[in-house]
Amino acid sequence: MNVFLIGANGQVGKHIIQLLSDSSDHTVRAMVRNEEQAIQLKQSGVDTVVASLEGSVDELAAAMSGSDAVIFTAGSGSKTGFDKTLLVDLDGAVKSMEAAEKVGAKRYIMVSALQAQNRESWKNSPIKPYMVAKHYADRMLIASGLNYTIVKPGLLTNDPGNGRVQASATLSGGAIPREDVAKTVVATLIEKNTYRRSFDLLSGDMDVHEALKLL
Amino acid sequence: MNVFLIGANGQVGKHIIQLLSDSSDHTVRAMVRNEEQAIQLKQSGVDTVVASLEGSVDELAAAMSGSDAVIFTAGSGSKTGFDKTLLVDLDGAVKSMEAAEKVGAKRYIMVSALQAQNRESWKNSPIKPYMVAKHYADRMLIASGLNYTIVKPGLLTNDPGNGRVQASATLSGGAIPREDVAKTVVATLIEKNTYRRSFDLLSGDMDVHEALKLL
Repeated sequence: MNVFLIGANGQVGKHIIQLLSDSSDHTVRAMVRNEEQAIQLKQSGVDTVVASLEGSVDELAAAMSGSDAVIFTAGSGSKTGFDKTLLVDLDGAVKSMEAAEKVGAKRYIMVSALQAQNRESWKNSPIKPYMVAKHYADRMLIASGLNYTIVKPGLLTNDPGNGRVQASATLSGGAIPREDVAKTVVATLIEKNTYRRSFDLLSGDMDVHEALKLL
Repeated sequence: MNVFLIGANGQVGKHIIQLLSDSSDHTVRAMVRNEEQAIQLKQSGVDTVVASLEGSVDELAAAMSGSDAVIFTAGSGSKTGFDKTLLVDLDGAVKSMEAAEKVGAKRYIMVSALQAQNRESWKNSPIKPYMVAKHYADRMLIASGLNYTIVKPGLLTNDPGNGRVQASATLSGGAIPREDVAKTVVATLIEKNTYRRSFDLLSGDMDVHEALKLL
């Protein structure tokens, strides 16, 4: 698949670029916010495009043209205000879904957050407003015409991955290395058992591919 | 209809209470956030319930029990941060829709904002994050099983109303007295031509009832 990656400059995004570049099944085009980030990626030989999640659906569609699949792993981050949570994590995400539909990129993989579907689990969380944005981005994706997968990892760590996870419709608290999230996301691309499904994801004892087949 | 009013302490809400209290077609139950606001309303003889849009769907459903219709005219307001925009204007609104579905209050009237459907119109607006929240609350309502009407007024003023408006699927900038917004919202309750429809609303030269029939 020709994969369009949104959030290419993020930590999970960088792992995904590596995996897709190494793969013989896929190509990757990385979307970043500014030229500075683009230069770095281009120097590593990555097909890179500059576009903003705060721009229009048409701008995103132009950047996405020719793609078969979109991976969304962008985030406004903890250093910006909740205005950006609304503009990027919610509206930016949904605009990228509309762009994907526009260019016929039917496959869409969203990196969401553990238990984003379950308000009760984040009712007292300090990041509750962020969870609201992820919750509705996910619901808009489910209601879209796209062939989606929603991957909802727990606490992200920078530990090296071991390719072993636990994946299920609902899991309670735990962590997972970013490298294993990336590996799972890339594995979902062509794993039909993940099509039009959402799942929580933590470190575990099952091989990624096996865990996805048993969802 | 037995009408459940969310945002009863707001300026549009107060006009709606007056109109519904004067009406022989409807009853009103006013939802407010705290006891202090409740006491004032109760002293005026208004059926009042204390509940929070930051609470659970079940709490909202309990407050709404026995209602035929919900009017949502709450807003987190300009004095709070965008965290409240996410928690109240988006998640609070959608929770009230889920509560309405739960108790069988099939009619739902949302007070939204002029051009909330059209990202292009607010791309440079200082209240863009607020418009994002209203946009998605409206989209969730349209996707729900409720018999909705979405009323999207322009700039709200405290001028006295004259009961004359302009209502159409899309209108460009302008203003309208809060009193005329309230009158229009109450008129939609039983005007079948507004069922499952959204419209922009400004001051104009047509009687409210006539304008709604001609939508």
